[in-house]
Amino acid sequence: MAGVSAPAAAPAGVAVIAVGSELLTLGRADTNSPHIVAAMQRHGLAVRFTTVVGDDLADLTDAVRHALARADLVVCTGGLGPTDDDRTRDVAAAVLGLPMQEDAGVLAGIRERFGRRGLTMPDINRRQAQVPAGAAVVPNERGTAPGLWIPAGDRAMLLLPGPPREMVPMLEDALSTHVTPRWGGGLIRQRALVVAGRSESWVDERAQPIYAPWRDEPLPIATTILASLGTVELHLSCHGGDAGALTHRLDAAAAALAAALGDDVVNDDGRSLERTVGELLAARGWRVALAESCTGGLVTTRLTDVAGSSAWVDRAVVSYSNAAKVDALGVPDALLATHGAVSEPVATAMAEGVRARAGVDVAVAITGIAGPGGGSEEKPVGLVCFAVTGGRGTVVRTSRFTGDRHVVRSLAATTALDLLRRYVRASDAR
Amino acid sequence: MAGVSAPAAAPAGVAVIAVGSELLTLGRADTNSPHIVAAMQRHGLAVRFTTVVGDDLADLTDAVRHALARADLVVCTGGLGPTDDDRTRDVAAAVLGLPMQEDAGVLAGIRERFGRRGLTMPDINRRQAQVPAGAAVVPNERGTAPGLWIPAGDRAMLLLPGPPREMVPMLEDALSTHVTPRWGGGLIRQRALVVAGRSESWVDERAQPIYAPWRDEPLPIATTILASLGTVELHLSCHGGDAGALTHRLDAAAAALAAALGDDVVNDDGRSLERTVGELLAARGWRVALAESCTGGLVTTRLTDVAGSSAWVDRAVVSYSNAAKVDALGVPDALLATHGAVSEPVATAMAEGVRARAGVDVAVAITGIAGPGGGSEEKPVGLVCFAVTGGRGTVVRTSRFTGDRHVVRSLAATTALDLLRRYVRASDAR
Repeated sequence: MAGVSAPAAAPAGVAVIAVGSELLTLGRADTNSPHIVAAMQRHGLAVRFTTVVGDDLADLTDAVRHALARADLVVCTGGLGPTDDDRTRDVAAAVLGLPMQEDAGVLAGIRERFGRRGLTMPDINRRQAQVPAGAAVVPNERGTAPGLWIPAGDRAMLLLPGPPREMVPMLEDALSTHVTPRWGGGLIRQRALVVAGRSESWVDERAQPIYAPWRDEPLPIATTILASLGTVELHLSCHGGDAGALTHRLDAAAAALAAALGDDVVNDDGRSLERTVGELLAARGWRVALAESCTGGLVTTRLTDVAGSSAWVDRAVVSYSNAAKVDALGVPDALLATHGAVSEPVATAMAEGVRARAGVDVAVAITGIAGPGGGSEEKPVGLVCFAVTGGRGTVVRTSRFTGDRHVVRSLAATTALDLLRRYVRASDAR
Repeated sequence: MAGVSAPAAAPAGVAVIAVGSELLTLGRADTNSPHIVAAMQRHGLAVRFTTVVGDDLADLTDAVRHALARADLVVCTGGLGPTDDDRTRDVAAAVLGLPMQEDAGVLAGIRERFGRRGLTMPDINRRQAQVPAGAAVVPNERGTAPGLWIPAGDRAMLLLPGPPREMVPMLEDALSTHVTPRWGGGLIRQRALVVAGRSESWVDERAQPIYAPWRDEPLPIATTILASLGTVELHLSCHGGDAGALTHRLDAAAAALAAALGDDVVNDDGRSLERTVGELLAARGWRVALAESCTGGLVTTRLTDVAGSSAWVDRAVVSYSNAAKVDALGVPDALLATHGAVSEPVATAMAEGVRARAGVDVAVAITGIAGPGGGSEEKPVGLVCFAVTGGRGTVVRTSRFTGDRHVVRSLAATTALDLLRRYVRASDAR
């Protein structure tokens, strides 16, 4: 292959072009570009820019020309189908000045694909067998559009189909077969510490003195903080040539942060909070029951999102009405009358009620005001009471969340899962 | 203002640039560009391409220069903060050849913003008061970074901050104050029919003969089909100068499609299925209870996502274990032993059990195998049984969904909501 250089020390520049008018007219999100950005990063390659462009010939030609002028590798997704709208193949060849020729192997593959379904290949699909001179085919196991790897001097283009289920495996194939042998800039390893129950600034205040020096040490670690509803993630990223050394370095870093952040650390491998809780329960052979009011089943939905959760989730009662709290959970009428539905005594009675009925090791209850209606001066929108009960007694908590209905419900669900996590973990210490 | 042209008949070309290295290194999604694409479309303006670029000075300069060469209006988001990384302002002025000057009004506004919180403005924030000559400020009610509208001959740039909660209202302000007076290409009105319980191809087969002629009639209507998990949306879009005529045209089009698609149409205004179900229940003064197994609370979570849902949701039991089905719902042990937990008789007993306990008008039950484990030859993963029961008896249904755990649960939840919708609607016909 002409023009192949030895693997470069520094990551090569990559540009990504997502092709398709539907991405600009229908609000269809371009999920391919973020996926490619992350995949390139894992292989030590930096994406300089990404572009979304429609099927317009002039716009697409211009986008490809501009990208090739600024990046070593240009990855295009979409526009490889058989119709007149599908122009990526022709535009790439034209901009690179390569003639097109029919590839007998590709043509046979497309024919065979139709044949397997008892169909004859329509004539228009013949276009998909047109390949620029010097290009290598990237096989597509899940569709008719083949991918193309097109080396051209010190640059290259990679053309992949638009549907993510076809694009994703083909990208991995092309990365290992064509991209990293040419431009592999070392390895990147990442680690994510998940922290719950603390604000982004609280986490950063404690973590910053620990991670700040890492940037200037050998095998430097880049750190980023990402906050979402109720959890904070500390992402560590390390770049180098030796997989073992990178893993060792990140293990030590994660341990140092975990020691400083203590019980607030949910895990150091990016697992979800609900999966972590499920695994803690499973490890002890415990089963859980839930009584949800304002969260409307969201906590149980999240716990049962985890495959295998029937081993640790017994049941839940979503007691949206007061009648349900009384007759499905045994909350005394008098308690509701005295304290109101959103109160720690009622949360406790809900948790104890569902635990007794289910005969489980531990139970969680949530009652609150998600809004926008239902708030009062004494009990404003966003007020939520929690109770966790089990063999070592009952823990209660009242929080006041700010935000719309969706935010309050999400924060309440995350808080409930985190209180359960802390209850289960603390039970070991006794 | 120099170079202002009369409103053009054809939509002007727009380019969008999202600025921020975090968009290219952290997997942070660029949600601003899709939002801007949709907003421009509502105002009759077509976005030609969107680009995501990091904070690198050369890359950003090149992206702005390239966009200005191909579009009449270039909208940038991000990079308007006070630090050295924030370069969008300077790059725009440099590419357009405009000198920067301090704007006394902007400076006073930033000072006042800090003052309201009892703080003194840090010196670096003074950078945010630098404005290119001839630019108009787009006020920012929610942050310190002002937006900028920069006319330049027959082109213009609009610079907006990156945080969506600041960007979104500022975009609307700039569209009505600056963009549409200059380039308003008429109005676009859209309508979405939501269809449930049918495949995309089923819907298209019936809808296509109806909508195909609309493309060539006066006030042409563009039609698009979008399928998601369990629902299909038919989007209609009409472009013209008279709001009343557009609305009238879309009303007639929606009515023609609704007549052809019948009961499968959930609504013709894009509301969610759960909101539609809630409104149907509320209109009749009905209350609902649920018994969920494989969906783990997802149906109830979706129903209670709707504000005000405490008026129509009484309770739910998530009976994940068989014991819960027996003692919380009254499902006979013998029924479970004879038919198994995933069966129409058990679904019926679950629905009848929760309805009797809650004393509500209608109840829904779901029991199935979400996978990946738990399947058998007789009852494979994806098999789900449903029952809806109420004053006019019980309706049962068994479906076999294909996909992973997430897909099966989502499809089952949507099917349950749709069966409830049909049950409530059909009750009127008696």
